[in-house]
Amino acid sequence: MPELRIALAQVNATVGDLAGNAELIVEWTRRGAARGARLVLFPEMALTGYPVEDLALRASFVEASVAAVHDMAERLNVEGLGGVAVVVGYLDRRSDLAPRTGLPAGAPLDAAAVLYGGRVAVTSAKHHLPNYGVFDEYRYFVPGSTLPVVRLEASGGPVDIAVAICEDLWQDGGPVAASRRAGAGLLVVPNASPYERGKDDVRLSLCVRRAREAGAALAYCNMIGGQDELVFDGDSILVSAAGDLLARGPQFEEALIVADLELPAAGDLTGETAVDAGDGTVITIDRVRLPEAAAPHVTAVTGLPEVPEAGEGAGPFWPRLSDPAEVYAALVTGVRDYVRKNGFRSVILALSGGIDSALTATIAADAIGPDNVYVVLMPSRYSSDHSVADAEDLVKRQGIHARTVPIQAVVDAFASSIEDFPASGLPAENLQSRVRGVVLMGLSNAEGHLVLTTGNKSELATGYSTLYGDSAGGFGVIKDVPKTLVWELSRWRNAEADRMGLTPPIPPNSIIKPPSAELAPGQLDTDSLPPYQALDALLDDYVEKDMGSADLIAAGHDPALVERVIRLVDTAEYKRRQYPPGTKITQKNFGRDRRLPITSRWREAAQGS
Amino acid sequence: MPELRIALAQVNATVGDLAGNAELIVEWTRRGAARGARLVLFPEMALTGYPVEDLALRASFVEASVAAVHDMAERLNVEGLGGVAVVVGYLDRRSDLAPRTGLPAGAPLDAAAVLYGGRVAVTSAKHHLPNYGVFDEYRYFVPGSTLPVVRLEASGGPVDIAVAICEDLWQDGGPVAASRRAGAGLLVVPNASPYERGKDDVRLSLCVRRAREAGAALAYCNMIGGQDELVFDGDSILVSAAGDLLARGPQFEEALIVADLELPAAGDLTGETAVDAGDGTVITIDRVRLPEAAAPHVTAVTGLPEVPEAGEGAGPFWPRLSDPAEVYAALVTGVRDYVRKNGFRSVILALSGGIDSALTATIAADAIGPDNVYVVLMPSRYSSDHSVADAEDLVKRQGIHARTVPIQAVVDAFASSIEDFPASGLPAENLQSRVRGVVLMGLSNAEGHLVLTTGNKSELATGYSTLYGDSAGGFGVIKDVPKTLVWELSRWRNAEADRMGLTPPIPPNSIIKPPSAELAPGQLDTDSLPPYQALDALLDDYVEKDMGSADLIAAGHDPALVERVIRLVDTAEYKRRQYPPGTKITQKNFGRDRRLPITSRWREAAQGS
Repeated sequence: MPELRIALAQVNATVGDLAGNAELIVEWTRRGAARGARLVLFPEMALTGYPVEDLALRASFVEASVAAVHDMAERLNVEGLGGVAVVVGYLDRRSDLAPRTGLPAGAPLDAAAVLYGGRVAVTSAKHHLPNYGVFDEYRYFVPGSTLPVVRLEASGGPVDIAVAICEDLWQDGGPVAASRRAGAGLLVVPNASPYERGKDDVRLSLCVRRAREAGAALAYCNMIGGQDELVFDGDSILVSAAGDLLARGPQFEEALIVADLELPAAGDLTGETAVDAGDGTVITIDRVRLPEAAAPHVTAVTGLPEVPEAGEGAGPFWPRLSDPAEVYAALVTGVRDYVRKNGFRSVILALSGGIDSALTATIAADAIGPDNVYVVLMPSRYSSDHSVADAEDLVKRQGIHARTVPIQAVVDAFASSIEDFPASGLPAENLQSRVRGVVLMGLSNAEGHLVLTTGNKSELATGYSTLYGDSAGGFGVIKDVPKTLVWELSRWRNAEADRMGLTPPIPPNSIIKPPSAELAPGQLDTDSLPPYQALDALLDDYVEKDMGSADLIAAGHDPALVERVIRLVDTAEYKRRQYPPGTKITQKNFGRDRRLPITSRWREAAQGS
Repeated sequence: MPELRIALAQVNATVGDLAGNAELIVEWTRRGAARGARLVLFPEMALTGYPVEDLALRASFVEASVAAVHDMAERLNVEGLGGVAVVVGYLDRRSDLAPRTGLPAGAPLDAAAVLYGGRVAVTSAKHHLPNYGVFDEYRYFVPGSTLPVVRLEASGGPVDIAVAICEDLWQDGGPVAASRRAGAGLLVVPNASPYERGKDDVRLSLCVRRAREAGAALAYCNMIGGQDELVFDGDSILVSAAGDLLARGPQFEEALIVADLELPAAGDLTGETAVDAGDGTVITIDRVRLPEAAAPHVTAVTGLPEVPEAGEGAGPFWPRLSDPAEVYAALVTGVRDYVRKNGFRSVILALSGGIDSALTATIAADAIGPDNVYVVLMPSRYSSDHSVADAEDLVKRQGIHARTVPIQAVVDAFASSIEDFPASGLPAENLQSRVRGVVLMGLSNAEGHLVLTTGNKSELATGYSTLYGDSAGGFGVIKDVPKTLVWELSRWRNAEADRMGLTPPIPPNSIIKPPSAELAPGQLDTDSLPPYQALDALLDDYVEKDMGSADLIAAGHDPALVERVIRLVDTAEYKRRQYPPGTKITQKNFGRDRRLPITSRWREAAQGS
């Protein structure tokens, strides 16, 4: 049986950075070659970054992507890597379609190329376009209708390798079915599959099922890194044709996953060329024989971190993260890349002594280092002594930059400038929060830090925050984290520090004390909101599962709570549209992700039971 | 030849207000019956409002819509209107599809029903789903695959009437082609087609072309009114099978367009039932014979405004609006319905004496009456005397509510609370703008007005505004209006007043003086921005036409200006995500409409020429 050494390069591409991404691809191909790989697989649209959104509709960007993929084939060859088959995702287009209403301008393709021997040996495009959740691909792409099958000389004989792209695995029929008909021994799949809590388990069983369907080994290479609200977790997977797991990459880290595959020898080259894909379409098999090429020129690899050691067992397996470790890593990755990819070097946030800002500061310090984190303590007349003490405790534990800006004088100046401005109640509470927002934005403008907001998902969902106040900033670190999970992650992070013999970064008092916005005397969150345990469970059913009021009550939620929370969530829709982006860890985020009309008169609660 | 009196009811539905919309449909059916119509046609999703966005994925809402359409059929009958065939859009679903990845949850349909004789005679669903521009229908709907053809007894014999929905007209093949094969004499089309500048001309030629293709008279009924950022302009159209225009409704007004149609007598009932729709699909013809019914019970119509008189000519034609009148009407409609549908009664805005806030206040006063418009003059030490005078002049001309809140004391309190806060430059300029934003939000919280923002499209595009400052508010009235058009609309509005012998609402000095943000001594917009004439032309090519830098230069734009403006626009992307919604009048709005990744490293200018 022929044997092929394959490398899955799960890299962190940046949208639009064609030169930087090309550099990354060359560098990791070199690493693959140094490890003896004959085939190096990169993620979906690794050359352009993903998702490119409206850039797909700009001809100049598509042209630049197409030129870059050809340049890269040449460059790999010049660098002595022409004998490595490199599978890389990029942005291409169809040139045979006339413009018409509804056709994405320029007919762009979510494409993949096989680079070999200094040229682009074959290209193809994603057949199944996802248009749900975070995906809007019917806006941007036209579907592909070919399945490339490249014949590569492996040690011991030729093997046939097919290429499918990301969503092609998730839908029945199409490239996976065509791959079986084409008799490919290996199906390689570039992916840009965003992280969701628990999605890693779904992915593995999907890969196993599709490998069996295709009757081929399956290599699944996923991107890592943050891109706006999305974060990609890597977690690349290699399974045999029988569905056995052969290798699995790390989560949230760049890595090269190398493994040897025993593959069936390629058969007759003259098989059928047009196959019924079982999804109502016909897919054309595009067979290409790659010529024998010189062995790759292997040079020392420098400039990128070392590949982690593989674990024990039948193949290279990286250790799996626990549920809280996984969520925490997603949040850290999201902040790190949002800061870096936007050209910032430091962040600033308001530290109140409460748990939300404490966790936000901790994530930020883990993401970009405590020396790049600036916090501002902004006590008002309602701030309690313990709040200031807890905030100061955190600063000491983490060694971040802190300063104090008392806000009472400004609040008083406002109130006395506006005739009849109420001294208490919602307008006065919001005023304090907005003054803090103005201070942070002023310091950001003056010193160049990115402002982080500290609101959690439970608050955002119910509108328990101030527009242009605590919601003002560039990135919402925990905006997709319910309050109960805020506590869980805080405890977990402290326990991890304990376990490693380090100082727990979060003051225990911030974790255990009852939450308060401290905008009025003796105020507690529970004055305005239900207990978080009940609230978070209800929000999950209402937002993530889209249950109506009757179903929520039938599921055991308190009817009065259902009515109250639905009213809060529905009327907060407008506010959420103006929140900053933040790392997405669940199926449905608020804001851009949840698309409800603001001016809707649908009152869910009124229709219930 | 049989003759049929048809009424097109272009009404203003509200998303989610099933009870209110049902009321509207019954009331306008009654009006149609009173005018002798046998067929009354309503817009797409008139029963639910359009667009329902994620409400389509909530089972409770879909169930409520389906129940409401059946209730309405009964109610029309009870009210003596069972003998009128009513064609109405609503939200339905397929119940025969199992859930799978990518299928919109619950398999919703953008449906239409023919109500007659107390029951739902037939239903169908939109075949072509738009997923471009403001449409995301692959997220929400599954396509329909039937063409209903109802046989109605008209005076002089039976006629066959087919139903297609909105996008079905814009795409080749599908229901229009099937309608010809089915031999229908009339094709009725419910629409929810948002206003765009100049779109009315495109629509008319489309209707003419499709009527000829279908070989049938064509009735196009469009919604009116504002819904979040969208505004529907009505402009309903009736053309003969030969393509002659028979009637055309008003723009931006509810109206009943009544006309008599000569239609071919219906032929053989047993024609083909499955036709190749010419778009790769097969459409099933669903033929239904409506029984003879009692003549409608006609009652006096009350409670809604009178139908305007029809114009001269072959049919009822409402007068057409000029280009500025049309844009102005769109903006007024957008504000009026955003305020009303969100449950507000009044608005508040900052009046600077400049043209942007002057036009915004004027549109608001035209939309909801001067007595519901509150303005705040917030002079700082950089405000010129003429600014205050021009603002006061506008208040006097329009009779709106005004107050003055000087901001200098608050600005000083801020600056002295923050150590080393710069006394001039961007942070100091933004501070003034943010203090004004906090004042407006405070007054909104205290008094319940909706805050309107006054930024124009040229400013938003280039980031020439302050986040959480002048961009703070609930609705951006002119956010889709370039500065050159701001001036044009202002001159037009004053000229209209002149023409009618009324006081021009806008102080001429606000129109003619050079624009300034007045955040620094002697500041002018032209210190930071190119002249608006050149800027707006460039923005149109870059944003609306998606041209890259090389193409922009080839089109005659100054290369240095191209590089500068692209840099401004691309780096302002983040800011625009946090702007409030505002009426859309062009193909591409900023913010939610333009979907560029924030963390993109694509630098258009660097690739140019």
